[in-house]
Amino acid sequence: MDAVSRFPIPDLDALPEDIRSRIAAVHEKAGFIPNVFLAWAHRPDEFRAFFAYHDALLEKDGGLTKAEREMIVVATSSLNHCQYCVIAHGAILRIRAKHPLVADEVAINYLHANLTPRQRAILDFAVKVAERSHEVTEDDFATLRGHGMTEDDIWDAGAIAALFALSNRMSNLMALRPNAEFYTMGRLPASEGIGANSR
Amino acid sequence: MDAVSRFPIPDLDALPEDIRSRIAAVHEKAGFIPNVFLAWAHRPDEFRAFFAYHDALLEKDGGLTKAEREMIVVATSSLNHCQYCVIAHGAILRIRAKHPLVADEVAINYLHANLTPRQRAILDFAVKVAERSHEVTEDDFATLRGHGMTEDDIWDAGAIAALFALSNRMSNLMALRPNAEFYTMGRLPASEGIGANSR
Amino acid sequence: MDAVSRFPIPDLDALPEDIRSRIAAVHEKAGFIPNVFLAWAHRPDEFRAFFAYHDALLEKDGGLTKAEREMIVVATSSLNHCQYCVIAHGAILRIRAKHPLVADEVAINYLHANLTPRQRAILDFAVKVAERSHEVTEDDFATLRGHGMTEDDIWDAGAIAALFALSNRMSNLMALRPNAEFYTMGRLPASEGIGANSR
Amino acid sequence: MDAVSRFPIPDLDALPEDIRSRIAAVHEKAGFIPNVFLAWAHRPDEFRAFFAYHDALLEKDGGLTKAEREMIVVATSSLNHCQYCVIAHGAILRIRAKHPLVADEVAINYLHANLTPRQRAILDFAVKVAERSHEVTEDDFATLRGHGMTEDDIWDAGAIAALFALSNRMSNLMALRPNAEFYTMGRLPASEGIGANSR
Amino acid sequence: MDAVSRFPIPDLDALPEDIRSRIAAVHEKAGFIPNVFLAWAHRPDEFRAFFAYHDALLEKDGGLTKAEREMIVVATSSLNHCQYCVIAHGAILRIRAKHPLVADEVAINYLHANLTPRQRAILDFAVKVAERSHEVTEDDFATLRGHGMTEDDIWDAGAIAALFALSNRMSNLMALRPNAEFYTMGRLPASEGIGANSR
Amino acid sequence: MDAVSRFPIPDLDALPEDIRSRIAAVHEKAGFIPNVFLAWAHRPDEFRAFFAYHDALLEKDGGLTKAEREMIVVATSSLNHCQYCVIAHGAILRIRAKHPLVADEVAINYLHANLTPRQRAILDFAVKVAERSHEVTEDDFATLRGHGMTEDDIWDAGAIAALFALSNRMSNLMALRPNAEFYTMGRLPASEGIGANSR
Repeated sequence: MDAVSRFPIPDLDALPEDIRSRIAAVHEKAGFIPNVFLAWAHRPDEFRAFFAYHDALLEKDGGLTKAEREMIVVATSSLNHCQYCVIAHGAILRIRAKHPLVADEVAINYLHANLTPRQRAILDFAVKVAERSHEVTEDDFATLRGHGMTEDDIWDAGAIAALFALSNRMSNLMALRPNAEFYTMGRLPASEGIGANSR
Repeated sequence: MDAVSRFPIPDLDALPEDIRSRIAAVHEKAGFIPNVFLAWAHRPDEFRAFFAYHDALLEKDGGLTKAEREMIVVATSSLNHCQYCVIAHGAILRIRAKHPLVADEVAINYLHANLTPRQRAILDFAVKVAERSHEVTEDDFATLRGHGMTEDDIWDAGAIAALFALSNRMSNLMALRPNAEFYTMGRLPASEGIGANSR
Repeated sequence: MDAVSRFPIPDLDALPEDIRSRIAAVHEKAGFIPNVFLAWAHRPDEFRAFFAYHDALLEKDGGLTKAEREMIVVATSSLNHCQYCVIAHGAILRIRAKHPLVADEVAINYLHANLTPRQRAILDFAVKVAERSHEVTEDDFATLRGHGMTEDDIWDAGAIAALFALSNRMSNLMALRPNAEFYTMGRLPASEGIGANSR
Repeated sequence: MDAVSRFPIPDLDALPEDIRSRIAAVHEKAGFIPNVFLAWAHRPDEFRAFFAYHDALLEKDGGLTKAEREMIVVATSSLNHCQYCVIAHGAILRIRAKHPLVADEVAINYLHANLTPRQRAILDFAVKVAERSHEVTEDDFATLRGHGMTEDDIWDAGAIAALFALSNRMSNLMALRPNAEFYTMGRLPASEGIGANSR
Repeated sequence: MDAVSRFPIPDLDALPEDIRSRIAAVHEKAGFIPNVFLAWAHRPDEFRAFFAYHDALLEKDGGLTKAEREMIVVATSSLNHCQYCVIAHGAILRIRAKHPLVADEVAINYLHANLTPRQRAILDFAVKVAERSHEVTEDDFATLRGHGMTEDDIWDAGAIAALFALSNRMSNLMALRPNAEFYTMGRLPASEGIGANSR
Repeated sequence: MDAVSRFPIPDLDALPEDIRSRIAAVHEKAGFIPNVFLAWAHRPDEFRAFFAYHDALLEKDGGLTKAEREMIVVATSSLNHCQYCVIAHGAILRIRAKHPLVADEVAINYLHANLTPRQRAILDFAVKVAERSHEVTEDDFATLRGHGMTEDDIWDAGAIAALFALSNRMSNLMALRPNAEFYTMGRLPASEGIGANSR
């Protein structure tokens, strides 16, 4: 369990230009290359599709806040026992929420985390999508609308849970190892930010 | 449960050109527009990412056969109770496997389906990725290698299960209705094909 | 998984007269002998008890419609992953409901099927009996009464779920193979009927 | 929870002759009328089918011993939380096994009961049929054959588990109350027998 | 499964004085030495801590009755399949409740036991603590308060379920055998008492 | 979810002398008072029993290392979604293992943590005790003996899992909040120790 992935990590120089430059941009912003970028690179088409999907849902403005989006990732990834996603997105959540404790709280038991009623409702819904999506009903939509969420926001919340259903399974398939840097990011009040595109 | 989706279906004419032409191509090949294309169209970036991902894994040659790829979709989608995916990919599986009974067999209980030992092992693995991916071990890889699968084949099998973890959750979120055409496709020996890109 | 059953199929001529004539009647009505009749025949007493039980609950008039009775069979048999019961009773359901899509809808996820509120309530109850009958309470009875069901109707709904708890386990024990004929029955609007006694 | 059943108990005198005489015979043998006979009597056809089925499997000689048959009932009924079946068949098991502790041991955790390896294998199989029959494989058959069981014995073991899948669900549907007599039967070494047909 | 425990049973004479005298007191009161005392004795510090904890919660006056405390033990121990705790505390429950049937009823399915609404609410809560304590919410507290329970009573109910979460796991680890005496205690109306400290 | 506990926190000055001095000792060693000590203090007898039990198992020398003992706590507490135990014992584990990443790895998915085969076997066993102790068999003991564990070591491993079955349920009952200090302890290589008695 010491390698970055069970699958090959390609040489950066051998990668297609668009992938190489995406990785270079993340590297510059974060100061290191998150392992997820290295691990998917041997499949360029899937790399492009995955990160396009990711950016469309996680880097979006409006509706859900970026911290709320990351909470969904952390809560559902923890239920799927995904080492990489909990650690890496836990770091991003701490930074985006500007709160050093929230990621661990959400990962261990979001029912006991310091959340607003709206955040709690979002996570109830996301967890339902993650674990028994076939039982989602109109009642769930009504609850979320009661917290001011639009149809587009509900789609976003469900879609982030769905995307990490994929991402968690891929990371577990690879036994993808989180970079050590993620474990300490955002744990101190003074902690300074990870770039918007890094994960 | 009578609408195509809980979310809006955009007017075809209002869609970006690349999406409109993808839909037109499927329409021509299949003779109808599978609802999945209509339902994702109001989110063009996610539409592009999803179908790019789909094509990279399902339309690929070599390694797993196309029928084996569809078996993974049907077996895991059934466990997730995804109406659209079981019906639509069940149709594609019947056609690609040239076997009118296989889709229902795999959907209900793949352990009692008429499969080769290799197919059985592929589905055991795909179901494990779908349901408890964090327990995937080197032993699972060894079993699949024993059936002649390469690392790339194993990635494909796991990645298809992971992609439909996403797809099933999205379809359930939308309550996506399958087109009536899918129910009867490929059920008769003489049945003629649905195009490679249609789903 | 190619044999009709893991257990012996007796020679029709060697069967007791009452069993042979029951099978002959089904054969004439349906045009083929459903495998369930062959597979239970080596145990004449259990054959008689099972079909007597079956007829008392499934061929009954009044209260639940015959289509509603078959919906219970399909919904609960699918959760038990019973190849034979889902395929054979799916065919009967299509015919009795005069609806080509309803059986697959109910088998995959009855929560997304086109059902009346009463039908939905019946299936909620039947699934509860199938999966956690010890939790059935007076509240469940009250809900069903609210949909116009009598005590006798509630018994019928619960008893059908209970009978197929038995039937599914027996079919799985035998690895009972459905006849190919069932897969296509009732899938076209013009489809004509399977006899009342055939299964 | 004080009534015998949630459903009506018919007047004995109003019952069909065959049912009345079956009940009279049990009454004479056991010294009381087990509630199961009263509770099913308002449905004469189902009463006849159920007890015919029951006798065919539980009162049979050869192959499995009668105590082994009752162990299957107790072990699986406990997992289904069936008040009536655990108490009534627990009493019968104590008597047939001539062992005052075995019924409670099997009901609470058969893995910690004083059983022979053959009995343990029978219960492993019966529990599998009760809880996940679709996963029964040829390997399970091979294990049982290794303990000297024939195909007929395996059918019996599976069929008893299947019959009580039905019986447990019916008893839970009725909230069927066990007779107080059953609780103490067979608990003392000197305890004398309950008749073969009483349950 | 015939030994008292998988772990060593020390010689009584070799035990520390406080433990030996505790055992002697129980022996005198109950007429036999419950095996739990013998089985923990080879770990004197854990013996002392466990029985101190036990007495603080089970032998306490006021708030919950002693019978209610034993009901919690029996209901949760049954769900954990703990042979020793169900049998031994079932005996104590029969005696404390002065009711020969209640222990078996609660062990098999407390939802079908003859309980007061308050007792039913206590067991609902205790089972939730036993099985999914992380989901306990303020609503659960409100329900119990509605049945007249104080904060201290709620702590007691939850703490007894928690203590037997430990006790059940230890007994299962040891495969601890219940004394034969427990099986018959309190089963007859005339049954006379087991001492307050015996278990 | 902002209070330390759902239950009252007594005034330190009002506590019995032995409890007050235990708390003072921890305070001096750790530099703060871990909330668990405050939260149990309103029940002095349970406080004494719990910490006596804890010290007997966690502060013991020989056999299992102290880091191995803490791994058991973290792995099982995470499965029980216990906020306090994962955070507080995660900190202690980082310090005792002198490894800043191990606690998060074990909490999220111990199967993907950097562990020795012996540690992996210990956690497999502890998780089995935590989740389905009634299935522990002699085979589990044999596996652990194969990793050099004595009977006493096996008892310790099982008993720690059992103690935290209690502790997790109590913490969840209280909604016990971890001290903020625990989140960052031991995350940097230079990190210096928390005292042996602090938790």
